[in-house]
Amino acid sequence: MANPAIAAVLVDWGTSRLRLWAVDGAGTVLGEARSGEGMGATEPRAFEGILEHHLAELGAGPKVPVMMCGMVGSRQGWQEAPYVEVPARLETIIERALPVSGTPREVRILPGIADRSVETPDVMRSEETQLLGLGRMAGNGAEGLVCMPGTHAKWVLMDEGATQVSGFATALTGDLFAALSRGSVLRHSLSGDAGLDGASFDKAVRAAIDEPARMLMRLFAIRSRALLHGADAAHASASLSGTIIGQDIAGALARFGKPERLTLVGGGTLGALYARALDLVGIATDVFDGEELARAGLFAAAVRVWPD
Amino acid sequence: MANPAIAAVLVDWGTSRLRLWAVDGAGTVLGEARSGEGMGATEPRAFEGILEHHLAELGAGPKVPVMMCGMVGSRQGWQEAPYVEVPARLETIIERALPVSGTPREVRILPGIADRSVETPDVMRSEETQLLGLGRMAGNGAEGLVCMPGTHAKWVLMDEGATQVSGFATALTGDLFAALSRGSVLRHSLSGDAGLDGASFDKAVRAAIDEPARMLMRLFAIRSRALLHGADAAHASASLSGTIIGQDIAGALARFGKPERLTLVGGGTLGALYARALDLVGIATDVFDGEELARAGLFAAAVRVWPD
Repeated sequence: MANPAIAAVLVDWGTSRLRLWAVDGAGTVLGEARSGEGMGATEPRAFEGILEHHLAELGAGPKVPVMMCGMVGSRQGWQEAPYVEVPARLETIIERALPVSGTPREVRILPGIADRSVETPDVMRSEETQLLGLGRMAGNGAEGLVCMPGTHAKWVLMDEGATQVSGFATALTGDLFAALSRGSVLRHSLSGDAGLDGASFDKAVRAAIDEPARMLMRLFAIRSRALLHGADAAHASASLSGTIIGQDIAGALARFGKPERLTLVGGGTLGALYARALDLVGIATDVFDGEELARAGLFAAAVRVWPD
Repeated sequence: MANPAIAAVLVDWGTSRLRLWAVDGAGTVLGEARSGEGMGATEPRAFEGILEHHLAELGAGPKVPVMMCGMVGSRQGWQEAPYVEVPARLETIIERALPVSGTPREVRILPGIADRSVETPDVMRSEETQLLGLGRMAGNGAEGLVCMPGTHAKWVLMDEGATQVSGFATALTGDLFAALSRGSVLRHSLSGDAGLDGASFDKAVRAAIDEPARMLMRLFAIRSRALLHGADAAHASASLSGTIIGQDIAGALARFGKPERLTLVGGGTLGALYARALDLVGIATDVFDGEELARAGLFAAAVRVWPD
């Protein structure tokens, strides 16, 4: 049954996950849904059916508009929302929201951001919406460096009072961790749920930042410590994590310089590890939850596009 | 039928491969065998049967002694030949050749080398035998840094006229390449047989050595260049290879300092890539074939242990 209080539905449709929030005119969440129907496993013509199914469940009538972000707007997604290029004003993201064609309902997809330079080519899709939400929630305070950990961690430089992305870089962090955990000799030294060996993590972070050249040797040393010194899985897991997060931070400092504080997007275990690692090198963090930022960004876009 | 000219059989028994050479008293190869019966897939009590099967095929009578190296001497192998510790004289490797017990035939396994320090723990098994062969083939000329590319690349410092291993470090190079090729987002940009894009390889090597901190960002940029600039699989493969080999070299230079020339163990494609990368940073190479060195090392040990 349709809920007349629903003013819009906000959707973050990524490669592996789909999340929807039904909100009223003030942005209050009236209902939400999550599913594993990621864009990566979805045929182009199936998008509308999946979306409408969830909208019906949420009680969103046929006139309720839908604002989306994420890989759903990629070339392999529903319809391609071409990247906005850096330096990218966040308002431009909203202005370029792609109206999805061929649907009776009003549906838009926010575009991602690209750096098309030869030296530092890069792309993002969905993080720009979190940054839009960050600008709304933190205002000027979000100016400077933003760290967004994940499978492909993003480091973003926000300027002009946090209304613009002037540059960004993606690092193969979580993806590297997973590939090494599953596919290298280190799999023999790692266990699934090891808990955190804080001292080993800290040592690995410091070593990576002090001497990033020696990364490949430090990775093998994790195995050697298990063989020679009987180091356990908790040590191996913390060392691998610290080596990769430390290398990620070292890269960001080399690219963007070292700030006194930065905005860290991500609660949970991974966010806590980054906060700890950044603290070790004297960088304070303001932490925001990524999902909350995505919702705030989608809502800001919805309000601008459909002011009524 | 037994061949009376066979003076000894030399065996390199690794995790995934078994190689045997029947030699006369001068080291001339009279017959050889190769098989996939690696130590990793062999039950402890099956070693003797596999060995005797190949010895019979080669025509080695029951009095012919066998000198072995490799993972066959690890804890998970046939019998454990405890590591010699650094600084390790190569003669000590021979003196500590473990007589395999419980076999009517005279069989010995050369031990590996370990660095048991807390700072740089490390292990090798089979490379020490190649180094022994190198000392025999190159004499003093092999003093200094030795680069041994592979799944787990070894960098070794030889001193005392190339009769001693004073230190070494293993890097997770080939293993990392394979894990990323198969298990990360980069798999979408790589093809199996791309040929070498030399310019992309060189650029990646230089970038890794100039600024090793930015490795994780450069890895993701391989994907971004495919997405934004249509870079092909040959580019992606050469960039990944150059990034990892460059990082490996950067690590070795950080650990051991930069030599004018070094000994490179390894012919083939991988050896050629290392030679090219080292040349880019002004390091000349003397190249030796690893299999030939292993055989020379095993023969040197056999002659010392069984002088008749």
